[in-house]
Amino acid sequence: RPLNCEANENDEEKQFRRVFQQLAGDDMEVSPVELKDILNRVISRHANLKTDGFCIESCRSMVAVMDSDSTGKLGFHEFKYLWNNIKRWQNIYLSHDTDRSGTIGSRELPQAFKAAGFPLNEDLFKLIIRRYSDENGDMDFDNFVGCLVRLDAMCRAFKTLDKDNSGTIDLDIKEVFTLML
Amino acid sequence: RPLNCEANENDEEKQFRRVFQQLAGDDMEVSPVELKDILNRVISRHANLKTDGFCIESCRSMVAVMDSDSTGKLGFHEFKYLWNNIKRWQNIYLSHDTDRSGTIGSRELPQAFKAAGFPLNEDLFKLIIRRYSDENGDMDFDNFVGCLVRLDAMCRAFKTLDKDNSGTIDLDIKEVFTLML
Repeated sequence: RPLNCEANENDEEKQFRRVFQQLAGDDMEVSPVELKDILNRVISRHANLKTDGFCIESCRSMVAVMDSDSTGKLGFHEFKYLWNNIKRWQNIYLSHDTDRSGTIGSRELPQAFKAAGFPLNEDLFKLIIRRYSDENGDMDFDNFVGCLVRLDAMCRAFKTLDKDNSGTIDLDIKEVFTLML
Repeated sequence: RPLNCEANENDEEKQFRRVFQQLAGDDMEVSPVELKDILNRVISRHANLKTDGFCIESCRSMVAVMDSDSTGKLGFHEFKYLWNNIKRWQNIYLSHDTDRSGTIGSRELPQAFKAAGFPLNEDLFKLIIRRYSDENGDMDFDNFVGCLVRLDAMCRAFKTLDKDNSGTIDLDIKEVFTLML
């Protein structure tokens, strides 16, 4: 990493870089296992967030969709982007858990996702609840984060691929695999 | 379910339906939690398959991509299709674990996936290993199944959407979400 890149950072970024260096270890990249440990340490401090913990499979999936330079791990900027999103989503989660159940119920979900920048239609909410909520329709914090990481990544990928802004993208089977695995 | 549907089943199907009725319970649909219990019971009998077990998130993801009638659970035919695939993939897994490590290493993977009907290119294998294998590049049985369920579902979705057989499909953002969440 060139020195001038670090020299241009403000105090907040410098502080974040110090924290990142501790979390990421010598290789300066956060692996799925490291991400799992970091996230589970963070949520253990918040008793008002219900969660069964981040599993390694969810963390691999999150790293895969965030890993724009295909190293299999998250570098500084990839991790910082994810970290800032998770902090924002945590505030949204807490402020939209209106019944203080510790989870986002199916009636709380549309407003919470709208606040996160995803005003979806009813069919997509049904799909999301089937995929990420439990049998009572409640979504816990790790699933909330997992779902939003994926939604956010899909939106960014779509914008990149929709070069002519037509609202549709053309994919062959290999591109489908690349996006959807 | 109309009676004549069951009347046309052969002995094997009748036997499978009896097993299914026991597994699925009164609602005759397999939920993600039921799928998790079924799969973890099956793998506990096979010491030569390494796995950390199927987690609820993986099972929700598998049900979501297999659930063609959007009930959030697997009906008889959806479950039977998955079950037969898993039996087939289990044989492929065991016969391609040439070093008897209990996992599919990165060098064993291309042949195993080819045998499963997915002769992919090198870039896709790299992507799959990043997403589904551990830090040593080894894929355990639950990840092998999770990956193949998704690959298989993507292929079927692609064929359905590629009505004119052009080799590419046109998706808007809602279709991307529907396929990729």
